[in-house]
Amino acid sequence: MATQPELTIQGWGPTSPAHADADLSSSLPKAARRHLARELGWSPRATPPVPVADIRVAPSRLSEQARVRLQVLLGEQNVRTDRESRLRRAGGKSYLDLLRRREGDASDAPDAVVLPGSTEETAALLAACTELGVVVVPFGGGTSVVGGLAGVDPDDRPSVAVDLSRMSSVRSLDVPSSLVTVGPGMRGPALEQALAREGLTFGHLPQSWEFATLGGYAATRSAGQNSTGVGRFDDLVAGLTLATPSGVLELGHPPASAAGPDLLGLALGSEGTLGIITELTLRVRPKPAADAYEGWSFRSWAAGLAALQQLARHDLLPDVVRLSDADETRANLLMAAGGGARALRGSLRARGHADGCLVVLGWEGLPGLLRARRKAAASLLRDGGAIRLGRRVGESWKNHRFQAPYLRDRLMDAGLLVETLETAATWSALPTVYDAVRRALRQSLTRGGRRPLVMSHVSHGYPTGASLYVTVLADRDDALPIQQWLTAKRAATDALLAAGGTLTHHHAVGADHRPWMEREVGPLGVEVLRAVKSRLDPEGICNPGVLLPE
Amino acid sequence: MATQPELTIQGWGPTSPAHADADLSSSLPKAARRHLARELGWSPRATPPVPVADIRVAPSRLSEQARVRLQVLLGEQNVRTDRESRLRRAGGKSYLDLLRRREGDASDAPDAVVLPGSTEETAALLAACTELGVVVVPFGGGTSVVGGLAGVDPDDRPSVAVDLSRMSSVRSLDVPSSLVTVGPGMRGPALEQALAREGLTFGHLPQSWEFATLGGYAATRSAGQNSTGVGRFDDLVAGLTLATPSGVLELGHPPASAAGPDLLGLALGSEGTLGIITELTLRVRPKPAADAYEGWSFRSWAAGLAALQQLARHDLLPDVVRLSDADETRANLLMAAGGGARALRGSLRARGHADGCLVVLGWEGLPGLLRARRKAAASLLRDGGAIRLGRRVGESWKNHRFQAPYLRDRLMDAGLLVETLETAATWSALPTVYDAVRRALRQSLTRGGRRPLVMSHVSHGYPTGASLYVTVLADRDDALPIQQWLTAKRAATDALLAAGGTLTHHHAVGADHRPWMEREVGPLGVEVLRAVKSRLDPEGICNPGVLLPE
Repeated sequence: MATQPELTIQGWGPTSPAHADADLSSSLPKAARRHLARELGWSPRATPPVPVADIRVAPSRLSEQARVRLQVLLGEQNVRTDRESRLRRAGGKSYLDLLRRREGDASDAPDAVVLPGSTEETAALLAACTELGVVVVPFGGGTSVVGGLAGVDPDDRPSVAVDLSRMSSVRSLDVPSSLVTVGPGMRGPALEQALAREGLTFGHLPQSWEFATLGGYAATRSAGQNSTGVGRFDDLVAGLTLATPSGVLELGHPPASAAGPDLLGLALGSEGTLGIITELTLRVRPKPAADAYEGWSFRSWAAGLAALQQLARHDLLPDVVRLSDADETRANLLMAAGGGARALRGSLRARGHADGCLVVLGWEGLPGLLRARRKAAASLLRDGGAIRLGRRVGESWKNHRFQAPYLRDRLMDAGLLVETLETAATWSALPTVYDAVRRALRQSLTRGGRRPLVMSHVSHGYPTGASLYVTVLADRDDALPIQQWLTAKRAATDALLAAGGTLTHHHAVGADHRPWMEREVGPLGVEVLRAVKSRLDPEGICNPGVLLPE
Repeated sequence: MATQPELTIQGWGPTSPAHADADLSSSLPKAARRHLARELGWSPRATPPVPVADIRVAPSRLSEQARVRLQVLLGEQNVRTDRESRLRRAGGKSYLDLLRRREGDASDAPDAVVLPGSTEETAALLAACTELGVVVVPFGGGTSVVGGLAGVDPDDRPSVAVDLSRMSSVRSLDVPSSLVTVGPGMRGPALEQALAREGLTFGHLPQSWEFATLGGYAATRSAGQNSTGVGRFDDLVAGLTLATPSGVLELGHPPASAAGPDLLGLALGSEGTLGIITELTLRVRPKPAADAYEGWSFRSWAAGLAALQQLARHDLLPDVVRLSDADETRANLLMAAGGGARALRGSLRARGHADGCLVVLGWEGLPGLLRARRKAAASLLRDGGAIRLGRRVGESWKNHRFQAPYLRDRLMDAGLLVETLETAATWSALPTVYDAVRRALRQSLTRGGRRPLVMSHVSHGYPTGASLYVTVLADRDDALPIQQWLTAKRAATDALLAAGGTLTHHHAVGADHRPWMEREVGPLGVEVLRAVKSRLDPEGICNPGVLLPE
């Protein structure tokens, strides 16, 4: 098992000198910087993070008795209370997390980090923590953007981060059944490497792919950039093992079963509140024989949505579909440096698409089928007024698909608020949700002469609707930066729920969306979840700070 | 809302004189009858059901107080205690159900039939029954083949069948989002009729399609003959309303959500144990522009499975896939009367496929895509040694797709045991499961010189595995017919679970599979289901005779 690179403490990317001296001018072309300054009423200013050595971490509250008990259970080297270990498992990677870490605050660090090596050890750990009154927060890649690792406990008990990196290998591969069984701490790149040897792929590619873990995807109901084609992570889980304080659940019976309600679906999205996922059986597929990534342009957002909806109802959506609105399209075109991008901008202007909306479509599969799908889709796209821009736009997107969170660090260094949020709605409700979220964010983040830039794209399509991914940039309020975003987030969430969107399409609930969970599933729905939790986690030690409302 | 035909009390099909005088010689060609007699060591004998007027129904145990309370709630005409109403809601349509009804036993008839007209009325009914100590068993089409309507209560409380036929219309249609909202008592034919006006289809076509209801499909996690293509019923439910004794749950947020565990998946497959489904939102699609049903032949079952697995891993499975084993193929070829069938048998013999396995493949969709899929699949099928038999075999299957349960009545009239069971397993486990089930059924049902005929087919394919549907015929033990089947069913179920199959792929658990439910989901899995049930149905009035082990 190769060691997997650790994320840097105050931002994104591996801890390495290569990223340390990047700045905004080397990350973003001048035209894009000028565009941002103009749109936001912002001037770049240096707002670097405090040195890591200055970050405040409170003394560990784990009792000597508890530490010894856990050491006996897991081995001394697998129970860690040193500053570095705790700091590295403090919170996730939301804008709010980064703000806190950059300002020198890691008061949410766990009191210890424990590393179980098996399902049995995890179950014993959970039973022990139940007796000891110690809160457990599972830690995979640490990439949550919704406060999923908050570790907040209403009873203020000490907490441990359960690091799953010792359970991160392929346990078995059933090629005829297209199933692989893995540990929860495994990451996408390692899985793809192992599968490539057999000509297989898994194909779940969220933006956090380099660092997030397979267990984390399951716990949060992740979706990836190719999910329109290969399916959401949910759809790819054939079975899993959930260690709980009350025992071990083995869930899922591939290929399908009608034996009672779907208990596997209760573990997916449980965000550590019911226990810890210790094994996953996932559906794999042959490496696609062919692929084609291409760009198209629509004259308007409405025309783009209408065309995607036509593709969707005829089951003609590609494997990757990303329709950007006019604001995001403009920014993306300015971010692409070089003569090719300039020529493209000119050509779009000449064809009346100066304020148009780009869509990236990615097709994968057997060549004959790929051709037939593209041909049928192209006909519908042309009927919808789209013009084809060719492969360069698609390939460019593909090459930069994991870059946004790296850029975020540089934008934060220069005095910007930068955060994303996402939802999904039916095709009928989507235009209203889009308008409502934009309005709420703009109203909330406009102050003085400064206003935010709100950029949106459809990131996943379904026959019945699509997801909406929103990126917000604004001049940061350096006096009250956390308050500034919390206010905007509250306004946006209220607005999208009122318009018929879901609370979250693929980021999960975490701590950040908790206040709205009852609105999403109803009071009785919350009660059902509580009943399940009480049965499996009677003392409420499992990640009490997330998902279920207080 | 058109009246939907009612099923006959002692068998399948609408109550109509057209079916009354059919007999085995008019239903089955002579060659097929001879084949059965030879295989089974059976001679046709007349074993007709007792007259309906002679069926014993116990007096209603519903108290006067309870009856009046329910009448006030639902209206007098919607609370029925007459013999006919109760008899028509007694049990389902399994072989055991039919045996009992044919012998004159309807001791499992509900004490009354109630017909709520809305979600609100259903919720009020459940609250009232909780107070009154009355068990409720939802009644849709009455087509359960696993004792789903058993109504058995450990506390022997009176029971009411909650007939959903008053809630059986389309409530809304969202064409852009491909979503239709319907009442749970609606049947497939009525839904298809309503959708056809908009050029749409739903496409869920189980063998019970003429009589089963949409609410029933949801409660039992049904699969239909086209499920390989359009998806299981589960996959087509975007949302539902579940009335429970503790209130109403509105579940599902189309197109997709990551807001916590999937509560919709708890209602699907709950078989009336958590409450009653009062509304469903379902995914619809455009009527396929083209279709092609065709037959192929493999030299052996193993070759057929291997080829389907190749199709599956490349996502090339057709919308309908039915691979029959050699025993089923032989019987099907003999059942097809006429010169065409004789010529086909001759041609298969000549090509070394005399003991071959037929597969019916059905393709639906846009013409260009259909062509590309068929072409790619044909290449894999030929690599797997298959020979194409053309469209006639496929069309013939399609024309007879709903006929088997009609034929069952005629076989029972002539002294036969005839029942089906089904499971699913991964591609790796499927051959072992197949062998194990056949062996168990043959051992259990062989007596004297008589042995059973066990015929199997793969009825649904998935990337990771497939379902297996088994039809059993045997000379009936007229002294102990129920015991004869229970013994065989127990042996088959033990065998298929031990080999890695699931307890049920699409018939649900009901009363018949209850004893194995703990083996399927584990003791802690059962406890989780109990915790949910306790929260929603504290007095345990909701269908206590099914799903959860006693």
